[in-house]
Amino acid sequence: MTSYQTLNWSVDTDGVLLLTLNRPDQLNAFTIEMANELVDAFTRASDDDSVRAVVVTGAGKAFCAGMDLSVGGNVFGLDEGQRPTMDDLQTRLNDPAILNGVRDTGGRVVLSIFDCKKPVIGAINGAAVGIGATMTLPMDIRLASDKARIGFVFGRIGIVPEACSSWFLPRIVGISRALEWTYMADVFDGHEAQRGGLVKAVVPGDDLLAEAMKIARRIATERSAVGIALTRQMMYRNAAQPHPLAAHQVDSLAMFYTSIGDGKEGVQAFLDKRPARFTSQASDMPPFYPWW
Amino acid sequence: MTSYQTLNWSVDTDGVLLLTLNRPDQLNAFTIEMANELVDAFTRASDDDSVRAVVVTGAGKAFCAGMDLSVGGNVFGLDEGQRPTMDDLQTRLNDPAILNGVRDTGGRVVLSIFDCKKPVIGAINGAAVGIGATMTLPMDIRLASDKARIGFVFGRIGIVPEACSSWFLPRIVGISRALEWTYMADVFDGHEAQRGGLVKAVVPGDDLLAEAMKIARRIATERSAVGIALTRQMMYRNAAQPHPLAAHQVDSLAMFYTSIGDGKEGVQAFLDKRPARFTSQASDMPPFYPWW
Amino acid sequence: MTSYQTLNWSVDTDGVLLLTLNRPDQLNAFTIEMANELVDAFTRASDDDSVRAVVVTGAGKAFCAGMDLSVGGNVFGLDEGQRPTMDDLQTRLNDPAILNGVRDTGGRVVLSIFDCKKPVIGAINGAAVGIGATMTLPMDIRLASDKARIGFVFGRIGIVPEACSSWFLPRIVGISRALEWTYMADVFDGHEAQRGGLVKAVVPGDDLLAEAMKIARRIATERSAVGIALTRQMMYRNAAQPHPLAAHQVDSLAMFYTSIGDGKEGVQAFLDKRPARFTSQASDMPPFYPWW
Repeated sequence: MTSYQTLNWSVDTDGVLLLTLNRPDQLNAFTIEMANELVDAFTRASDDDSVRAVVVTGAGKAFCAGMDLSVGGNVFGLDEGQRPTMDDLQTRLNDPAILNGVRDTGGRVVLSIFDCKKPVIGAINGAAVGIGATMTLPMDIRLASDKARIGFVFGRIGIVPEACSSWFLPRIVGISRALEWTYMADVFDGHEAQRGGLVKAVVPGDDLLAEAMKIARRIATERSAVGIALTRQMMYRNAAQPHPLAAHQVDSLAMFYTSIGDGKEGVQAFLDKRPARFTSQASDMPPFYPWW
Repeated sequence: MTSYQTLNWSVDTDGVLLLTLNRPDQLNAFTIEMANELVDAFTRASDDDSVRAVVVTGAGKAFCAGMDLSVGGNVFGLDEGQRPTMDDLQTRLNDPAILNGVRDTGGRVVLSIFDCKKPVIGAINGAAVGIGATMTLPMDIRLASDKARIGFVFGRIGIVPEACSSWFLPRIVGISRALEWTYMADVFDGHEAQRGGLVKAVVPGDDLLAEAMKIARRIATERSAVGIALTRQMMYRNAAQPHPLAAHQVDSLAMFYTSIGDGKEGVQAFLDKRPARFTSQASDMPPFYPWW
Repeated sequence: MTSYQTLNWSVDTDGVLLLTLNRPDQLNAFTIEMANELVDAFTRASDDDSVRAVVVTGAGKAFCAGMDLSVGGNVFGLDEGQRPTMDDLQTRLNDPAILNGVRDTGGRVVLSIFDCKKPVIGAINGAAVGIGATMTLPMDIRLASDKARIGFVFGRIGIVPEACSSWFLPRIVGISRALEWTYMADVFDGHEAQRGGLVKAVVPGDDLLAEAMKIARRIATERSAVGIALTRQMMYRNAAQPHPLAAHQVDSLAMFYTSIGDGKEGVQAFLDKRPARFTSQASDMPPFYPWW
């Protein structure tokens, strides 16, 4: 059993990890401790073959009400004399002084979700503002409850969008909506989120978790673990290349590799008109992975 | 007359090539032979000035029901001992052993469509699943019949999306829908495709081909052949650059070149209030083409 | 007071610059003079701290009816003997012979908008065709009047889309709509523009300017000048990088910088439940700007 102070970790018999942000009395406000625990949890979920899909939601009324501002304005805990240069930041990103004092904590969480080899479903059950909104961007599929309130509200307090949202948000909703949502800094409901392509669907609050779990279970039980882990990285990384030939090279090897693995069983099951039994594990990725 | 085993090739008096996937008894299932014939057909269409636009559709009920799986699971025909390394694949992509044994056939087709200098309209008349869906992605405009059934179903048989779809699909429908459609692997209708931006419109089945031909004829007869050939490559290639200055450089030369060619006639016709008669040919591209 | 021949420049007490294309008898058709004045105006707006947001609209019935073709087809004023090579253009882009004779004038305007450190709102009050449409693409938020008529009509006169639209349009509306709109070259209304994601909203013509000014005033008075200037460049430039780590590096420094500047006041104001008073100025950007 995995134990956290700010999260609840629970894996069901289908291999779906339900990860719950668990500071309900603080509307699951984001702290450094929560950031560190999220990075740990997604690293574990990535490495543990018994986890085949992840659902993220919030305990109580909120998903995550943003950074916990009760610590005051100096959220980084450094005074101006300690301000690093851009050169420092670029070359010393993993230096403890940079990592703990300056490196954007939301970004560390988002990168750990992006690197996770398991599919991640976001179940936005209530307020998801600031880092509560941006942490959902690297998740593969997002669902909103009819009680969801989403906002990229950084501009209200004079800061910039963070957590790699300048990379993810334009990819998800297009550059114009990304600019509009961050400039206006409004809080909006699930229907506006769906119009922008941010969430797949808006569902009644009572059905949200069941719907998210249903999607996660289908992927966990009916898909190839290696096939899904490759698909996320192929989609994001190949699409960022300047020419489709880069995609073709990775496609060719990935198609060849899967076609003699889970794909062989998949085709046979299709011809036999029976469910496929895929056996690959994300801990055993193909020799060409990572290809970047 | 151009003769194929798996395709029908027919050019009308306006220069519109109707290319029909023609294995109706097998729901136009995709074979290595069809792949080779498609590459040949799009290469010819690109080079032949009498072809000014292409419409692709399927004979009978289906558009293309995916790879022909009647050959069984080992679709590449190679055993594990022949598996190439990623280094092999990257450096020997055109080596016959790689080309015929490993290189993704769907990708070879898609790259030939992408390289074709003529506009390509997809008329999705029925089932378009697997490679039947991904081969439409490099086409410029897609229309769906109300009988269309589209699915990126690779995950059902344990393989990954192919045919450079990891490059094209996020550009067309956004990264989140691309991930959702490939993870869920559901088959959906034209209206869902339209909501995602995959098809321009859903039209009654009986009107589909006429509507696609109408669009193709307009481009074939009312547009500059060089202007259109430049536009596709400018849109895809410039947009993949990190800064708009790269687009500005190509824009400047392309605007200058066309303004002293078809553009001169175009402006004069506009001032004379008469239809323009453009004379450029795609076989005679500007000296700066290809600029990449 | 700033005086132009083709533009009207007016700054209100909230720091909102209303920039009006002002050749109403020619439907604000675009000329070299207008291009030069627009570049000058956006450079000034970028540098002048008393300008905190920009609204662009057209005087009279039209927004901008495209390039002024009354000068005839040879819009560049060069004969074929003066045609530069691509090498010339790439290496001599700022050479006066290239700049004045060949370099796409629409692109020069668009790059000056892209480089402007102030948010730009487009109020499309009527016809916006050709360069009248493409000049709106680098603006952050676009609103359309119910009288707006928008068209990327270059194909009708045998030329290619310009003004870096091959870079901006696919980012805003997706590659397929970008290709469809430029191939078809149709003129469409604000509702079609909104369906494509090109405009935020369609508003009655009488309300258009008030609505655009309202948005601009909110950003001018309630947002950090440095935060907004960073946000535009972060969104466009970080999203064009191949991996989110590039965004994370910029995010980290930008979050750190703003958190000890306007962000400190922003958080304190939030805790005090009072409006924030941001004091940063775009003339005093952080030491890591520009980071590219």
